[in-house]
Amino acid sequence: MIPAVSIVGRKNSGKTTLIEGVVAELKRRGYRIGTIKHSAHELKLEDIDHEGKDTYRHQLSGAEVVILSGPNRLMLTREVMDYLSIDELRRIYLSGLDLILIEGYKKEDKPKIEVFRQEIGGEEGLLCSREKDNLIAVVGDRKFDLGIPCFGLNDYSGIADFLEKEFINKRQDSDIELVVDKKDIYLKGFAAGFLKKAILGMISSLKGVPESPQEVEIKVVSNRI
Amino acid sequence: MIPAVSIVGRKNSGKTTLIEGVVAELKRRGYRIGTIKHSAHELKLEDIDHEGKDTYRHQLSGAEVVILSGPNRLMLTREVMDYLSIDELRRIYLSGLDLILIEGYKKEDKPKIEVFRQEIGGEEGLLCSREKDNLIAVVGDRKFDLGIPCFGLNDYSGIADFLEKEFINKRQDSDIELVVDKKDIYLKGFAAGFLKKAILGMISSLKGVPESPQEVEIKVVSNRI
Repeated sequence: MIPAVSIVGRKNSGKTTLIEGVVAELKRRGYRIGTIKHSAHELKLEDIDHEGKDTYRHQLSGAEVVILSGPNRLMLTREVMDYLSIDELRRIYLSGLDLILIEGYKKEDKPKIEVFRQEIGGEEGLLCSREKDNLIAVVGDRKFDLGIPCFGLNDYSGIADFLEKEFINKRQDSDIELVVDKKDIYLKGFAAGFLKKAILGMISSLKGVPESPQEVEIKVVSNRI
Repeated sequence: MIPAVSIVGRKNSGKTTLIEGVVAELKRRGYRIGTIKHSAHELKLEDIDHEGKDTYRHQLSGAEVVILSGPNRLMLTREVMDYLSIDELRRIYLSGLDLILIEGYKKEDKPKIEVFRQEIGGEEGLLCSREKDNLIAVVGDRKFDLGIPCFGLNDYSGIADFLEKEFINKRQDSDIELVVDKKDIYLKGFAAGFLKKAILGMISSLKGVPESPQEVEIKVVSNRI
């Protein structure tokens, strides 16, 4: 599973600037990074597209999902009933990446790095605590004695080292993932090996299946019977 | 599988206007519609996001995938190496819809409706042919005698009737979908039933799996062994 770390902090503390610096540094090291930005308020269509563009017109007329597909980039906009969780976003939209950096989403139980600037939060101190919020490091213009790493505001290289060591290098992917009714089912050793081998065996003689498939995806929908 | 129909036609023939009208009409009838717009040229970041916004900065700094997640909408931008095919876009990004309308993507083998305006294409005639391009209907300001339906430019209701009858109502979903190394493997009756029952049986005793699961997704990655 792609590791995901939240960058949190007060308004104007420098979350986006930190993400820019760390993403650029990790990209320079050859990693593939995805980011998620939590919007605190409702998004108007003009916030996420340009008024008058064809895709804007598609969505305005009532299309729930609109994709603009180019040779170098694509854009997707979608109506949702509520915030999707980080896990949902990861499962539906993110693959092939080494790390996901999240701006905001403070309420989720993901590991957090807090950005702190004396000038902004000097009187109140940190927003997050190690125990309650899963705070794993602080980036700021003063030190905190919390038993977790403290980095300077511009120490992108140090923060990248930390993310590399604690998340990117420690990643462990199961070779089989099972999702039932949108919930991840964790498989232990025997069940994982058994299910994987049974599936690879069952599909091996089907027309069109190569001898050593690299990736197999199966979706079963029960209520279509 | 969600049916997908391309709307094609010369520049300024009215493709986007037609899609707007038909999407609004189908939405009024309670259907959930997705649209895909083919961009003929490279997309600059400012084409798909607003300069200076946090998500713009994330992507500019090198993030490959950037998501903006709000309570009512989300936006995703992603770098790609080449155009994704309609089938890839459908598999990766589109679910829970009744119909996908595509603007452009003329070279793909999807059923096509051509928009024709005498003033634009009067001398050359239609871009697509029934046999070569899978043309299934024409929408225009003159009639063509091709043995396929011809609709007036503003006949959104007639076109919606046609799409409903020919695609939305004829949709047949297999209750098991198998994708191996990004290619769909078509399963015939016996193999489909066998694989489905075997999978549901195997997972039924796992902790966390409900008695009658509605949707099961399994991903096996072979090279992680």
